[in-house]
Amino acid sequence: MRGFVFHGPGKSAWEEVPDPAIKEPTDAVVRVDAVTICGTDLHILKGDVPEVRPGTVLGHEAVGEIVEVGSEVRTVRPGDRVLISCITACGRCRYCRESAYGQCRGGGGWILGHLIDGTQAEYVRVPYADLSVHALPSTVESEDAVLLADIFPTSYEVGVLNGNVRPGDTVAVVGAGPIGLAAIATARLFAPEWIVAVDLAESRLEAARRFGADAVADARERPEQLVADLTDGLGADVVIEAVGVPESFELCTRMVRPGGHVANIGVHGKPATLHLEDLWIKNVTITTGLVDTRSTPALLRMAAAGRLPTAQLVTHTFALQRMEEAYDVFTRAAETGALKVVLGGPPRDEVALAAG
Amino acid sequence: MRGFVFHGPGKSAWEEVPDPAIKEPTDAVVRVDAVTICGTDLHILKGDVPEVRPGTVLGHEAVGEIVEVGSEVRTVRPGDRVLISCITACGRCRYCRESAYGQCRGGGGWILGHLIDGTQAEYVRVPYADLSVHALPSTVESEDAVLLADIFPTSYEVGVLNGNVRPGDTVAVVGAGPIGLAAIATARLFAPEWIVAVDLAESRLEAARRFGADAVADARERPEQLVADLTDGLGADVVIEAVGVPESFELCTRMVRPGGHVANIGVHGKPATLHLEDLWIKNVTITTGLVDTRSTPALLRMAAAGRLPTAQLVTHTFALQRMEEAYDVFTRAAETGALKVVLGGPPRDEVALAAG
Amino acid sequence: MRGFVFHGPGKSAWEEVPDPAIKEPTDAVVRVDAVTICGTDLHILKGDVPEVRPGTVLGHEAVGEIVEVGSEVRTVRPGDRVLISCITACGRCRYCRESAYGQCRGGGGWILGHLIDGTQAEYVRVPYADLSVHALPSTVESEDAVLLADIFPTSYEVGVLNGNVRPGDTVAVVGAGPIGLAAIATARLFAPEWIVAVDLAESRLEAARRFGADAVADARERPEQLVADLTDGLGADVVIEAVGVPESFELCTRMVRPGGHVANIGVHGKPATLHLEDLWIKNVTITTGLVDTRSTPALLRMAAAGRLPTAQLVTHTFALQRMEEAYDVFTRAAETGALKVVLGGPPRDEVALAAG
Amino acid sequence: MRGFVFHGPGKSAWEEVPDPAIKEPTDAVVRVDAVTICGTDLHILKGDVPEVRPGTVLGHEAVGEIVEVGSEVRTVRPGDRVLISCITACGRCRYCRESAYGQCRGGGGWILGHLIDGTQAEYVRVPYADLSVHALPSTVESEDAVLLADIFPTSYEVGVLNGNVRPGDTVAVVGAGPIGLAAIATARLFAPEWIVAVDLAESRLEAARRFGADAVADARERPEQLVADLTDGLGADVVIEAVGVPESFELCTRMVRPGGHVANIGVHGKPATLHLEDLWIKNVTITTGLVDTRSTPALLRMAAAGRLPTAQLVTHTFALQRMEEAYDVFTRAAETGALKVVLGGPPRDEVALAAG
Repeated sequence: MRGFVFHGPGKSAWEEVPDPAIKEPTDAVVRVDAVTICGTDLHILKGDVPEVRPGTVLGHEAVGEIVEVGSEVRTVRPGDRVLISCITACGRCRYCRESAYGQCRGGGGWILGHLIDGTQAEYVRVPYADLSVHALPSTVESEDAVLLADIFPTSYEVGVLNGNVRPGDTVAVVGAGPIGLAAIATARLFAPEWIVAVDLAESRLEAARRFGADAVADARERPEQLVADLTDGLGADVVIEAVGVPESFELCTRMVRPGGHVANIGVHGKPATLHLEDLWIKNVTITTGLVDTRSTPALLRMAAAGRLPTAQLVTHTFALQRMEEAYDVFTRAAETGALKVVLGGPPRDEVALAAG
Repeated sequence: MRGFVFHGPGKSAWEEVPDPAIKEPTDAVVRVDAVTICGTDLHILKGDVPEVRPGTVLGHEAVGEIVEVGSEVRTVRPGDRVLISCITACGRCRYCRESAYGQCRGGGGWILGHLIDGTQAEYVRVPYADLSVHALPSTVESEDAVLLADIFPTSYEVGVLNGNVRPGDTVAVVGAGPIGLAAIATARLFAPEWIVAVDLAESRLEAARRFGADAVADARERPEQLVADLTDGLGADVVIEAVGVPESFELCTRMVRPGGHVANIGVHGKPATLHLEDLWIKNVTITTGLVDTRSTPALLRMAAAGRLPTAQLVTHTFALQRMEEAYDVFTRAAETGALKVVLGGPPRDEVALAAG
Repeated sequence: MRGFVFHGPGKSAWEEVPDPAIKEPTDAVVRVDAVTICGTDLHILKGDVPEVRPGTVLGHEAVGEIVEVGSEVRTVRPGDRVLISCITACGRCRYCRESAYGQCRGGGGWILGHLIDGTQAEYVRVPYADLSVHALPSTVESEDAVLLADIFPTSYEVGVLNGNVRPGDTVAVVGAGPIGLAAIATARLFAPEWIVAVDLAESRLEAARRFGADAVADARERPEQLVADLTDGLGADVVIEAVGVPESFELCTRMVRPGGHVANIGVHGKPATLHLEDLWIKNVTITTGLVDTRSTPALLRMAAAGRLPTAQLVTHTFALQRMEEAYDVFTRAAETGALKVVLGGPPRDEVALAAG
Repeated sequence: MRGFVFHGPGKSAWEEVPDPAIKEPTDAVVRVDAVTICGTDLHILKGDVPEVRPGTVLGHEAVGEIVEVGSEVRTVRPGDRVLISCITACGRCRYCRESAYGQCRGGGGWILGHLIDGTQAEYVRVPYADLSVHALPSTVESEDAVLLADIFPTSYEVGVLNGNVRPGDTVAVVGAGPIGLAAIATARLFAPEWIVAVDLAESRLEAARRFGADAVADARERPEQLVADLTDGLGADVVIEAVGVPESFELCTRMVRPGGHVANIGVHGKPATLHLEDLWIKNVTITTGLVDTRSTPALLRMAAAGRLPTAQLVTHTFALQRMEEAYDVFTRAAETGALKVVLGGPPRDEVALAAG
């Protein structure tokens, strides 16, 4: 089959790779019908994630059809259409027992397209399939569902739930890229009074409005003042960091009210300064986290009920074999306006059956 | 009457000051029977807390007898023995409605010995008395009760409750001064498996053992290794910062397990470095806070039942008029071994009735 | 002035009564601009609430303008337009300190139109005004705001928050009268997947659909089957009781899934049968409660943002002096289709100033 | 091998049965070293649990050594000493994903000695071994550990955690049999101010004092009055039902304070009367539940640290082959004073290896 292979910093190709096969009785092999590219994939390509070995097929988000399962897989079977979660869960370790799958100590966590071959391919082997894929209701389109592999649960769990958004709150979201937009959309599930989006790019702030931001602010124009004005000078109840640079995190800690929450979603490469000389007295709660995908079943129910603006995030679609072109469009998002790009499978009869 | 007056950085005296009197109908005037000195008072003397104006009587912890109340005070009356909380609560503002008295926006919060005259005097005026003093059961000695004005609720709320200590947890307490020792004592209320105390001073680590630490570590000898050894390499469930310097806070963030809590109690004067490049993926929760004293009623019940080692913290006692000597002993704690110093009132007949 | 006076079971009149005046320095006197009638008022008229003494002015919900305040009232002043909460809070007792105002032990709780004269009058004295009225933003109409005195916070706190409604849940609301409809509306703030309304009357089920129910069921036609069908046989995550009879409560306990919540809002006059022989093993949580109105500030923010369907509940409006007619329409709700009736104040110049 | 077999109401015997063997790759076979008898086993013998088929080996609590595992078992292996949990967990279903193992829909839940052969035998097959047994630290004796199979997690989760016991609380425990005593012991982990035990038998109340009750009351002598006296008339913060009859449950609902919790542990065979005419206004929370055993890892850590009075519950020990005598002693607990009876394995060389 073909897959998108990382060959070291700056080098990658859509090329022929061996078909995946069942290795463990808890594995499944899935034919990929829809897959997307994550900002993290771009980091890998730059060489920022050194544990990814050259030769690895990238990708940790997909929807597809089960083509083969190991003998111990019980909850899905060949022919089932499934969502492949970005997080794999052994289901047995201390963290999995507490639904903290992202911290799995039993061989799971974020492994697809990271420690093992991932989903940007015609077929993918998924370990621990029972806990790592979700059968899809027929009413959810693959293009919508694929956004529930990573971006929606990440925004919802690490941003909205960790931040404890409540009805009537003022919520500030710093960063209006795909993750920030999904945070705006899922914050709305809790009926806040105000959602304020902050970004540098006018086009992203416009997108934020479409996703439900009630107010927007340019990050260079003292957005903390807008938040203060909306809240009698108190600050936001919840501030969600969706960028991943020190300046952005520090802005968040200036916008939060005493007693409020700062929920970090951003992937950071450098330390930030924590102004404890101001914050020690302010009763703030700061959270970080990798997604656990424990919310995926609930999000799937909401998507099925049409309550998540998944399709709105998809700006470009491609056939699967046009992976390199899709990467190019996604990499040049500032020019192309790309939010999420989705690649669909090739016509079914063009693909030789990979497994079994 | 006499009180301990701040006269600007480095200058202070136990001297004659005007008797306090009722100013607002919600005030009470209290004769001070037991008072203590807080590390924060030393910071004020050094000039680190610029909002304290010269001429202010210091002190925000005391036990005494109500001598006069304003017309609107309903829950206590002259003759009642009361605990004066370090936090004053208007009871009406948004924060007080949520029991977040430390963040009171209606004229309360930490004001005694800070924005108005405090408790290190023969008498003190307490605003909003109904919500700011607590009638004492006769079974609790004043010397014990005075430790419930600040240090015990601070350790319990900002350390143990914010940190979410649970039965069976491993808890690390960094800093074994009075606040750290009270954090150890109140963490024990939740039956953790391990309490690990970290400090630089051997004498403090010994004290930590007496207060219930199961293991101790010198801060210079990689205490994170001890915690790792006790937890299969995972890290502590809860880490409590009770020092207030960047190095100590940063150590805390290295000792916490994925999914764990860092609860900052320390009063910080400088920013710390937050290693988000490591922490973003670890699901940690970091909290800060000024005490609200919402737990004081429960702590009083526990003290009455003999379940708090309050007396153990008191290393020195003085008559009230020996305030300057008490400050000297407390300032030189490294030499004197002082944990908390308590000053009792002078014999009753020596004091002219101050108010009314 | 004139007010609606209870004269014992079956007897009442809109009649001349003494003007209210400030009795305590924490009181306010409010001119009533909008008032409504609660199902509880009908119970009082029937004699079901024996602690209401003949001669009492009824009513515990209103919006109006402050005309006089006692010397200790600090947060509102004459001329302010305010919402009068159905719950009065002393702010000092153990329960008020925990925001459980409905259980106030200091002279508050539900007292208006119950233990003291209430709001169905031209003027009303409100004790503990600082904690018992809420200043209104100009953007909220009085007709909308008056529904936040009781019915919306009751439905939200006792139904939706006690029941712990979460995004993606299936919620069943038994009883589609005004309280049940407000429960449907406020459950929607948490983006459940399904809201199922159950009632005996077709017209109420139609109203339920307008308020956001996704499915409706006749209470006589095994509604538990509909819920089971929607949930793969599991049952509802949350069931809200909004009727107040044993049969309805027992139906709720049959509709809840293992691990789910039954939140009782209904005012019951008789015991129910709790089938512990079935329920002991099911991990259910059952809650009861009088409203605390702790959520009123957040609900006001949501109303100001246009996110509560308050106006939709108001089926009839009357001038204040037509109180008896309004009672008649509300009493015959089955015929008149009344949900909430709102009475507005008479033209301003017709009323002699009552207080001061 | 030999096991204790149910042969229909009133009929049972310690007799020869087939050796268990691995049926599924997720199974383990365990040699039983310590086993106990539960009150539920007596119910089964009486015929109260009709789904138990004649021919079933009883027992759902044990400690033993793994003798064989299926190919998919990863976390334990032959030779490991393990605790067999009373709850079996598939680890894959909706409930297991939320750690609600007691409600497992994937073939687990309470099945041992109920739907499949149990632990009162020389060997037992345990399905889903990875999630249903716990490796034992060598510092915990088997006689202590076996009490963590059911009685301690049940008391802790369904009583103490569901009841939300907090430091400083007043806790009433109704029923001072083995479950009630374990509830007293585990409630103490949260440092309540008062634990009040209620029972009919003087000997049980004496035991309650030994386990940490601060006060005891005869159930016939208005125990609600004692609780009221201790709480200024308010009632208990938490009331734990550990009997399982209507009168006892109803007593619990009379002893709880407004805003308090009633946590039902008792196994009920009949409905109770819920006095909603009193309770609707009281903000009470009532919980029921089968244990999930999610707390077992934490309890094991506490047992290893010597913080659980497990041994104190064991009044009688027997060799395994004296099962019928042990049942007799346990059945006549009122005469024999039995709390828990523990049966140890026979000398190792007397037993033919059962599996493999």
